[in-house]
Amino acid sequence: MAKQKSNVVTEILKGTSQVFFMENPVTGILFFVAMAYASYVSGVWATTIGAAIGVVVATLTARLLDCDEKSVASGLFGFNGVLVGAALPTFIAASPQLWVYVVVGAAASTVITAAFSATLTAKWGIPGSTGPFVLTGWLMVAGAYSFGGLHVTGDAPKLATDYVQGFAPLPQPLELVQIFFRNIGQVYLLGDEISGAIILAGIFIASIPAGIAAAAGSLIAMVVSIAMGADPAIVSQGLYGFSPVLTALAVGVIFLKTSPKVVVYALLATVTTVFVQGALDVIVAPAGIPSFTAPYVLTMYLFIAPKKLLAPHPHQPVAGHMIGHEHAEAPLSTKAT
Amino acid sequence: MAKQKSNVVTEILKGTSQVFFMENPVTGILFFVAMAYASYVSGVWATTIGAAIGVVVATLTARLLDCDEKSVASGLFGFNGVLVGAALPTFIAASPQLWVYVVVGAAASTVITAAFSATLTAKWGIPGSTGPFVLTGWLMVAGAYSFGGLHVTGDAPKLATDYVQGFAPLPQPLELVQIFFRNIGQVYLLGDEISGAIILAGIFIASIPAGIAAAAGSLIAMVVSIAMGADPAIVSQGLYGFSPVLTALAVGVIFLKTSPKVVVYALLATVTTVFVQGALDVIVAPAGIPSFTAPYVLTMYLFIAPKKLLAPHPHQPVAGHMIGHEHAEAPLSTKAT
Amino acid sequence: MAKQKSNVVTEILKGTSQVFFMENPVTGILFFVAMAYASYVSGVWATTIGAAIGVVVATLTARLLDCDEKSVASGLFGFNGVLVGAALPTFIAASPQLWVYVVVGAAASTVITAAFSATLTAKWGIPGSTGPFVLTGWLMVAGAYSFGGLHVTGDAPKLATDYVQGFAPLPQPLELVQIFFRNIGQVYLLGDEISGAIILAGIFIASIPAGIAAAAGSLIAMVVSIAMGADPAIVSQGLYGFSPVLTALAVGVIFLKTSPKVVVYALLATVTTVFVQGALDVIVAPAGIPSFTAPYVLTMYLFIAPKKLLAPHPHQPVAGHMIGHEHAEAPLSTKAT
Repeated sequence: MAKQKSNVVTEILKGTSQVFFMENPVTGILFFVAMAYASYVSGVWATTIGAAIGVVVATLTARLLDCDEKSVASGLFGFNGVLVGAALPTFIAASPQLWVYVVVGAAASTVITAAFSATLTAKWGIPGSTGPFVLTGWLMVAGAYSFGGLHVTGDAPKLATDYVQGFAPLPQPLELVQIFFRNIGQVYLLGDEISGAIILAGIFIASIPAGIAAAAGSLIAMVVSIAMGADPAIVSQGLYGFSPVLTALAVGVIFLKTSPKVVVYALLATVTTVFVQGALDVIVAPAGIPSFTAPYVLTMYLFIAPKKLLAPHPHQPVAGHMIGHEHAEAPLSTKAT
Repeated sequence: MAKQKSNVVTEILKGTSQVFFMENPVTGILFFVAMAYASYVSGVWATTIGAAIGVVVATLTARLLDCDEKSVASGLFGFNGVLVGAALPTFIAASPQLWVYVVVGAAASTVITAAFSATLTAKWGIPGSTGPFVLTGWLMVAGAYSFGGLHVTGDAPKLATDYVQGFAPLPQPLELVQIFFRNIGQVYLLGDEISGAIILAGIFIASIPAGIAAAAGSLIAMVVSIAMGADPAIVSQGLYGFSPVLTALAVGVIFLKTSPKVVVYALLATVTTVFVQGALDVIVAPAGIPSFTAPYVLTMYLFIAPKKLLAPHPHQPVAGHMIGHEHAEAPLSTKAT
Repeated sequence: MAKQKSNVVTEILKGTSQVFFMENPVTGILFFVAMAYASYVSGVWATTIGAAIGVVVATLTARLLDCDEKSVASGLFGFNGVLVGAALPTFIAASPQLWVYVVVGAAASTVITAAFSATLTAKWGIPGSTGPFVLTGWLMVAGAYSFGGLHVTGDAPKLATDYVQGFAPLPQPLELVQIFFRNIGQVYLLGDEISGAIILAGIFIASIPAGIAAAAGSLIAMVVSIAMGADPAIVSQGLYGFSPVLTALAVGVIFLKTSPKVVVYALLATVTTVFVQGALDVIVAPAGIPSFTAPYVLTMYLFIAPKKLLAPHPHQPVAGHMIGHEHAEAPLSTKAT
């Protein structure tokens, strides 16, 4: 195989596109257009600038640490950095300390990506995906409460006591279309439906099945969250949809080969993600942090972990235990490596 | 070996009995009798119906996903489902959304069981046991706060500020007998002592050592929790005993071969479980979720994980690290696979 | 190799010194001197007595359980016990139940150390370090809220709503010197600067590079925490420094072979630990527990986990999944064992 030297700009754009599992520089450009459009509308440019710094720092850190050449070239060390860079200025007000935070956070996200790769992926066969972003983002936002130089602009820590009970009126058709696109835009923390549409276009450019899966994930999330009576204000911002969109893509198209059975499996995973979204919002609320893509990450890990021809896991003595070993047979040892 | 085709009804009853590590359809019937008796007394049938739906959906999902034939036949894909089905109606009021929740939760519990089996069990030699139930139950109950169609009937999220300080008078002898049986019944979320006695009878039918271990676990938990000054209202409901009962069974009889040394080890594990029960109640309180069997699961994982002839884990350079690899010797690489 | 029988007193002193990764009985004696000095100044001897009980119980438990001979002799089953024994009386008032708690906690810490060794270390190549102490300490302190016989003397569970915002005046030079030594003393939960100086002397006696790394970690933590605007009252007690001190030692000297690249890597790890300290303080606050050395443990695990020549972890189908297996190629299976 002839190896072609990878260009750092291409790597960075591919890293940007890998947030949706795509390895396509044009898709990466469209994703930056979507972020820039949202910044233009809101007047807040720190998120787009943060995203750019994040993907550059994360990719360069991967180069400096001699991370796996092929993975770096594919942008696989960039997508967690771009999300860290976009997320921190979304939840923390701009200050000199914020930019230190973005740079250190993006560099750390590369180390964490390498850590997930060497353990979860290499040993258990589970892709790390945006897990490193979730971990980095949680630590950085929670940490911001401790430092006077950082001001968290989102909600303060709270208990889940004021949650909605009872049903709200159904959204109107126009709003449903907005929610459909916001569900996709929120993967990049963008609540703007035009940005969501640009991102969906970027996905379709790279892969038609991926575009279909993303759209299906958004629809399923909308139906399930409304039917379960989720808070309309949250549904309306697209915050019940972005994790299911990623799950539909990951389980239905990217990490399993699409088949009728896989489609049903991905449907169960996508519906489960909506419930896990509701759960994690409640669970992380006392720490004052957003759930980020954790609902997707947790659900995807659980649905991708099972392997064919599972070792039976009977209720029998485990082998080779520290104590009692002279008696125990070895029912698990032949399967456990 | 001649394989005999397994009957789905038998699988379901075995799954019900596997909550206590037994593979015995008659025991499963007795467990359903215990649940039905408690429903008859309380007038609330949703829990027994939920348990039946849970074990059926979980077992059928395992069949549809082609999970390990032998494990499915032994009921090992059913016991997490029966617990999910019993637990959700215990903590969430009946509604159409609840039943959707029970079905999706039970199906997801099978995927999660397969995930634990492929990682924790196959790679680390630790049985998943009721870990998948705990994870599914936590996510579903926490999620219920987010959905208007679901109403959590248990306690709202709180901080552990109002915990008991100081001692209460000792329970009377009759109450001690009730607590002894409730400790066993609460494994199935049943606070009724008659149900507990029926369950204990079901265990003895399947295995006399298992019955003795369960009884010993209940006694130890009662003594330790009262001696430590735990809240008598909670002790009295059997809520300090069900996890230690499972630990005594799992560590003393099921996963290690019984010996004098294992009995001492199981005693330490059982006492530790009582302390972990107190801890997890406090730790999960802010999320508004019950600790379920997590005290057992966590303690059992930690006590079963150690292996004989442990690889030394000295404070020395680790091998093959991403950076600095040209210098590091390989003290761990020969032991770490 | 001629094996020389290890002396239990030596093992216990080595265990005490292993808190700072040293295997040196004289260092262990100095660490006990540092604890005793702090007890003398404060008049509270329960912490020093607890530490002695903890390391003895943990080491004897390891002997009884036939844990790896070489590791026990090196004190590697003692250092988590000494920390459990020092920590519990620091946060829980003395009572008969406290001493039961210290003994059971120290014994459990040995089992948990063996559990970490058999999984995290043997399978993933990550040293357990003080992870077992953190887990044991969290469970025991959280559990104390549930038991009337135990009274938590530290802060009650709270939400992170009253965190400092805005900057305080810089500490004076003399205070900076005190903070420098307290950062080291707090690894042993000692807020006294003389105790910190004795501990640093103990480290230098055992290893000059280790002493330099500890001092550098303390300086970096002081600069970063002040520059980020951390609460001066917390910085002043040395509570922002003890985890970074351990990270600087672990990543810069102990687990990676020192080189210019490793120094930069350890610098990033040390700065990250300061941020993680701020984060974990907020995250564990609702449970009413201290973060202990968790900021060090988490950061060190993440920075030590990555391995050279990482398996690529592309966004491709995973191999051997339970469903869809007949189609999927095996891009990960050749790398994942």
